[in-house]
Amino acid sequence: MGEEDKLEDTEAAVDGKSKKALKKAAKDAEKAAKKEAKKSTGQAEGDKEEVDVSAGKYGTFGLLQSKADDKNRNAIFTHIKDLCPNIKDQIVLVRGRMHTSRAKGKQCFMVLRQQQFTVQCLVNVSDTISKQMVKFASTINKETIIDVIGKVSSVPKEIEACSQKLVEIHIQEIWVVSESKSQLPLLIEDAARPVKDDDQEGLNIKVNQDTRLDNRILDLRTPANQAIFRLEAGVCRLFRDILTNKGFVEIHTPKIISAASEGGANVFTVSYFKSSAYLAQSPQLYKQMAIAADFDKVFTVGAVFRAEDSNTHRHLTEFVGLDLEMAFKYHYHEVLDTIGNTFTEMFIGLRDKYKTEIE
Amino acid sequence: MGEEDKLEDTEAAVDGKSKKALKKAAKDAEKAAKKEAKKSTGQAEGDKEEVDVSAGKYGTFGLLQSKADDKNRNAIFTHIKDLCPNIKDQIVLVRGRMHTSRAKGKQCFMVLRQQQFTVQCLVNVSDTISKQMVKFASTINKETIIDVIGKVSSVPKEIEACSQKLVEIHIQEIWVVSESKSQLPLLIEDAARPVKDDDQEGLNIKVNQDTRLDNRILDLRTPANQAIFRLEAGVCRLFRDILTNKGFVEIHTPKIISAASEGGANVFTVSYFKSSAYLAQSPQLYKQMAIAADFDKVFTVGAVFRAEDSNTHRHLTEFVGLDLEMAFKYHYHEVLDTIGNTFTEMFIGLRDKYKTEIE
Repeated sequence: MGEEDKLEDTEAAVDGKSKKALKKAAKDAEKAAKKEAKKSTGQAEGDKEEVDVSAGKYGTFGLLQSKADDKNRNAIFTHIKDLCPNIKDQIVLVRGRMHTSRAKGKQCFMVLRQQQFTVQCLVNVSDTISKQMVKFASTINKETIIDVIGKVSSVPKEIEACSQKLVEIHIQEIWVVSESKSQLPLLIEDAARPVKDDDQEGLNIKVNQDTRLDNRILDLRTPANQAIFRLEAGVCRLFRDILTNKGFVEIHTPKIISAASEGGANVFTVSYFKSSAYLAQSPQLYKQMAIAADFDKVFTVGAVFRAEDSNTHRHLTEFVGLDLEMAFKYHYHEVLDTIGNTFTEMFIGLRDKYKTEIE
Repeated sequence: MGEEDKLEDTEAAVDGKSKKALKKAAKDAEKAAKKEAKKSTGQAEGDKEEVDVSAGKYGTFGLLQSKADDKNRNAIFTHIKDLCPNIKDQIVLVRGRMHTSRAKGKQCFMVLRQQQFTVQCLVNVSDTISKQMVKFASTINKETIIDVIGKVSSVPKEIEACSQKLVEIHIQEIWVVSESKSQLPLLIEDAARPVKDDDQEGLNIKVNQDTRLDNRILDLRTPANQAIFRLEAGVCRLFRDILTNKGFVEIHTPKIISAASEGGANVFTVSYFKSSAYLAQSPQLYKQMAIAADFDKVFTVGAVFRAEDSNTHRHLTEFVGLDLEMAFKYHYHEVLDTIGNTFTEMFIGLRDKYKTEIE
């Protein structure tokens, strides 16, 4: 493969941006790639004595050492959620996790995942893609982080299994950035499968709650958990934005306090140097102090602690409280109106801004 | 005073909005006012047997009982910060705290305060303002919450003592909403005075730190403390907005944890039902878990606890931490760039949006 080809490929890959930097990057990448390729495909070459036409187009990155001269870092990555038929035939560089991979004769289908977005990628034996490269692609473990360079292509039939249903990537290069173990405690596919008790035909593979919690990092990669965290952030953001627009000031209240702040709920005791203190059950007192101190309207978002020794799902000893307090001029209905209005605006905001997360 | 006059006054006071409601309000107010006026000015009338031309224009509100038929609540209040020469000659309704009051012969100057904003008000004996009313105004305690209705007037000379330097209010009605004690543990004026060690000529009245902390509510009413809280809210808001725009997700991390989260800092022990737990010194582990769970970029704003038994000003056992964590593609400089950029944007935001607070 000529150097010219290589340069052209990579130039196209970044969609015309910062070409100069990319040329350099390409050279560097090529050098590294050749070295790596020798290592990783050494065995395959030894076995078959076949010329690998794809040498330098796949392999494993070494340890990223944040070297000053690592020119790769000017490369521009495309996010999977931004792949669409509008950028058809462009060459893109995508970093994601190997979600699933399925070899089928001379081709290998892979699903690449980024958070809740997935796209189908295809490696097909051809003039520029060697058998060895397809074999390499098919042996990458699930959940491994990989970089792929390839052409965005529209598909004749919608891809049901991916979030990007209208396009797939025809791979030109494939690089392993960080390899995962070959055996994982749970598979994201299994964890993400909706649990249907009455589904007779469907697969009946479930991941137990213990396994999920013991391997929380893997479980959090499921689309549902990704959406939960994003919606949680969204609720807090909307609460803050709406109240700030209404003239509220955000305050931060102490969490370690000298006496129980509210009757009715139990407190946690903290050993505070030579004496004892308590964890705040509520920011109530501090909100009220702020009102008396003429802040007029305040709110706080923060941890609240309740020492309720209960084993149901619905009792937490620690949660994030969204709390507001305001002074009214004549009538407590002013407060009710503000609260009602805030909720309405929050639900409208969730509907409008977090559509993909709610699904 | 005829009913017509009364109606006209109040109509003007609300700047043309919801006149119908206000007419009703005016009637109600008048009735209540007459009753109150009899009580509060009874003695003065008795003494001098003089006709009080201002009866029904001043007095003390009863307890606000959030009655369904309290029509006052449709009244529109003007904020002191919005008073400016543009609304000259308009009649406004303002609720604020009596900051200072100074009677001088037949007139009484008052400074009305709302958070960090102050405006001068003037009651002057005239055809419609009785001596009794001026006397009533001059006897209102400092820090009492009052409602005033009056005309916005521009002043020949800038008022140095107030934040509204270009306008004052010529009072037509004055009502006490919530009376304060006549003797306060500290005066906002004193607490707000800048401490200058070498100021030989100036007043040398200081409020000690103990007194301030024992009466935190009063101390928080000083302009400096108001600004501190508003800037604190501003810093958090900018941090959140900037990072959210950069694609970060806000997460909430546990505060009660089962083991020390970071070496080097001491932990607080919490008695957690039958065993012990610890207060989080840092959200480090949880941020890193989120990165491993493919969140890519996360941040958290929340309480952090450090059991450092130190008596300097610069050690706190509890503070609000602004924390971010991100995955980088090739080089740790990507993280440094993000952090640097965030700080720059935060300082620009503070400069542009919080000018009045910084003064």
